[in-house]
Amino acid sequence: IIMRLDDPSSWFVPASIFAKRTFNPIRDVVETLDLRPNPDKPMIALSIGDPTVFGNLGPCQEIIEAVLESVRSGSFNGYAPSTGYLEARRAVADKFSLPNAELEAKDVILASGCSCALDLCITVLANPGQNILFPKPGFAIYRTLAEGLGINTKQYNLIPDRNWEVDLPHLESLIDHETAAIVVNNPSNPCGSVYKKSHLQDILSIAARHKLPILADEIYDDFVFEGEEFHRLASLTTEVPILSCGGLTKKYLVPGWRMGWILIYDRQGIFDKEVRKGLQCLSQRIIGSNTLIQGALPAIFKNTPPSFFASSIQQVQDNAVLAFEHLSKIPGLTPVAPQGAMYMMVKIDMENFPEFSNEMEFVERLVSEQSVFCLPGKCFDYPNYIRIVLTVPRDQMVEALRRTEAFCLAHHVPASPKKPLPAV
Amino acid sequence: IIMRLDDPSSWFVPASIFAKRTFNPIRDVVETLDLRPNPDKPMIALSIGDPTVFGNLGPCQEIIEAVLESVRSGSFNGYAPSTGYLEARRAVADKFSLPNAELEAKDVILASGCSCALDLCITVLANPGQNILFPKPGFAIYRTLAEGLGINTKQYNLIPDRNWEVDLPHLESLIDHETAAIVVNNPSNPCGSVYKKSHLQDILSIAARHKLPILADEIYDDFVFEGEEFHRLASLTTEVPILSCGGLTKKYLVPGWRMGWILIYDRQGIFDKEVRKGLQCLSQRIIGSNTLIQGALPAIFKNTPPSFFASSIQQVQDNAVLAFEHLSKIPGLTPVAPQGAMYMMVKIDMENFPEFSNEMEFVERLVSEQSVFCLPGKCFDYPNYIRIVLTVPRDQMVEALRRTEAFCLAHHVPASPKKPLPAV
Ligand SMILES: Cc1ncc(COP(=O)(O)O)c(C=O)c1O
Ligand SMILES: Cc1ncc(COP(=O)(O)O)c(C=O)c1O
Repeated sequence: IIMRLDDPSSWFVPASIFAKRTFNPIRDVVETLDLRPNPDKPMIALSIGDPTVFGNLGPCQEIIEAVLESVRSGSFNGYAPSTGYLEARRAVADKFSLPNAELEAKDVILASGCSCALDLCITVLANPGQNILFPKPGFAIYRTLAEGLGINTKQYNLIPDRNWEVDLPHLESLIDHETAAIVVNNPSNPCGSVYKKSHLQDILSIAARHKLPILADEIYDDFVFEGEEFHRLASLTTEVPILSCGGLTKKYLVPGWRMGWILIYDRQGIFDKEVRKGLQCLSQRIIGSNTLIQGALPAIFKNTPPSFFASSIQQVQDNAVLAFEHLSKIPGLTPVAPQGAMYMMVKIDMENFPEFSNEMEFVERLVSEQSVFCLPGKCFDYPNYIRIVLTVPRDQMVEALRRTEAFCLAHHVPASPKKPLPAV
Repeated sequence: IIMRLDDPSSWFVPASIFAKRTFNPIRDVVETLDLRPNPDKPMIALSIGDPTVFGNLGPCQEIIEAVLESVRSGSFNGYAPSTGYLEARRAVADKFSLPNAELEAKDVILASGCSCALDLCITVLANPGQNILFPKPGFAIYRTLAEGLGINTKQYNLIPDRNWEVDLPHLESLIDHETAAIVVNNPSNPCGSVYKKSHLQDILSIAARHKLPILADEIYDDFVFEGEEFHRLASLTTEVPILSCGGLTKKYLVPGWRMGWILIYDRQGIFDKEVRKGLQCLSQRIIGSNTLIQGALPAIFKNTPPSFFASSIQQVQDNAVLAFEHLSKIPGLTPVAPQGAMYMMVKIDMENFPEFSNEMEFVERLVSEQSVFCLPGKCFDYPNYIRIVLTVPRDQMVEALRRTEAFCLAHHVPASPKKPLPAV
């Protein structure tokens, strides 16, 4: 408590607890790094989660044209309802309706990016002191959003050797009386994993057993490589109520447009009692997302050709294959092959790099010697790994891999030979 | 506490306290009204705060062209920094720099509408259990935003007979150890008042005496009638730190675009200690506003001709003059002349309308008999008044006034003559 009236002689305006608790682990970690690129080599950033910065990926003409038309129409300058225009919500509902879990406009809430959609969901589902579960390694935003609100987070383990499947017993062991929801991110940032149907069913069983709703972060829906299949969590349950968050950001390659949504999949009407109304009320705080994009949404869905998605996925997949093959051969590195999204996690066998006491130092030196920057695993609560983004242009990927190889060869020290097994 | 594990047989997913505490008084009040327009008369809505819905007001070609160019450029599809592009923030800083309180890009935070800007400011300034002061009558959003967060609100009185000036002793009497900030809304929604320099200085003196920051809602900046002058609060103090919220919404007639901003006016560096960092962190939750509009911002500021503002203000002012003159002559009504913004408050002499027990019933009957709808004062915590919007087309305003007059004449009962004064 600040005793303002008692000390009227000096100014002090504190920031709230909420603000002090709100932090972005990625930014926090990156700010502690000493990043000084080699002046002789142009920097290659394998760190940036914005697929549009490199110039090779971006929205197609149909998407741009839909927005131009929306602007020209003059029909989308006024306030929309706080959850979004009916037509826009209907377009989203039609697009994400499932045979066994149909959506109507009332089941869709538009928000200012997927981040805002996640914010609304976390805010409506949990009280301060309660907890939500999210994956480790996992995208930092769940923590950024929850901890500001005083909601605790607990992380369930993913298993790298099983394509980052959830450690189910560990997940279940974390559930307690204060658990309000389970966050599932599929396809995953930072893992690039895409879960099999049976694995998603196992996760749903746990949620059903404990009567816990699921917050499904499906922003990379359908962004999966050839031969892989994306299963929307809601398609696999008749029981568990699901809030699925998504948006244009990644698939349509327009992160700045801030168009996200919540899909309310709830076949049993469990959210009817309180959660729907809660989301509606919360959406009134900032009155939703940009109306010009909302106005364009039906045309964006209708006109974007399948070849657009195919082509961007192909570029990312080609990079994934190239990087996986190359990194597999580099001594001291163990990449984990992704099945989708835009990232790959790479294990660093730290015992083979005795010069570096952790992956942060590895990252710093890779920058200072080779001007290649990847995010250290610590950004995702996962030490000894680095995350590389797969959206860079092909030639930069080739060059980054070449430089990373040189770096590892220069610093790798073969493990001292294992003691021979005692003779039987 | 929900005992999930103890009762695994049934589903119940509650909404959070935050969600339950978040409500919009306008919506709450309007939902309780019984609104059945007279089927023989087309509805005239003098209730809607969206100036674009009637078709007479909207963005000019220069504004639209700036956005088209931003979309066509292809340069504004990626993520911007969470506080906004440097160029966009610089354009805002240049525009709102004051001779004695200069702004740089670092003093500007872009947000998703003025609502989001206010949300960030309230969230950073106050903790649950603390309070903020805001005007009565006042715009409901301060309460909507604060109470969700568990921050209390107290309302200081405005004085209708003095052009809605603040009742300064009342304001000062409300300040206690838990007061975190004073919200000042000038020009005002719902009053249409524009404060004189000396009055703003009086408010600043109180803030200075109690070392309280001011949250200035200046979304209607410069939207003032001929002969009136808008004084930005920050232009009148060297001491009091001010967060000023604004945006394109009202002056540029594009509420749906969700482009708002916070201007940090802080000549003494009082916000440097904690508040700036807090705002920065909070802005990372949803990563700001639409980049296409951000990209257009410099051109919007540069190219919008002064005649655009002059013409929309003129339309509103003409309606204000017309409505004030007409309403002044209607028995039982006492309009309070506005000096700016888009609204006028009208007092209903309830004792002359004995049929109606409060202004809500007056409003309901005005709808059912004359199909004219105004917001009841209760929406702004101000019973016995109604708010009319001044942005409707001239002919609708004329017709609405005519119908309101007929309604009042039909229901007005002259007050019983006052008892004669006792003879001395
Ligand atoms: C898994 C995941 N969820 C949510 C987001 C946020 O998306 P948006 O930019 O639409 O807020 C991201 C962005 O990187 C992400 O990777
Ligand atoms: C006084 C006042 N502040 C803030 C707002 C919200 O503006 P925005 O639509 O930019 O969030 C309004 C809108 O009516 C208003 O009247």
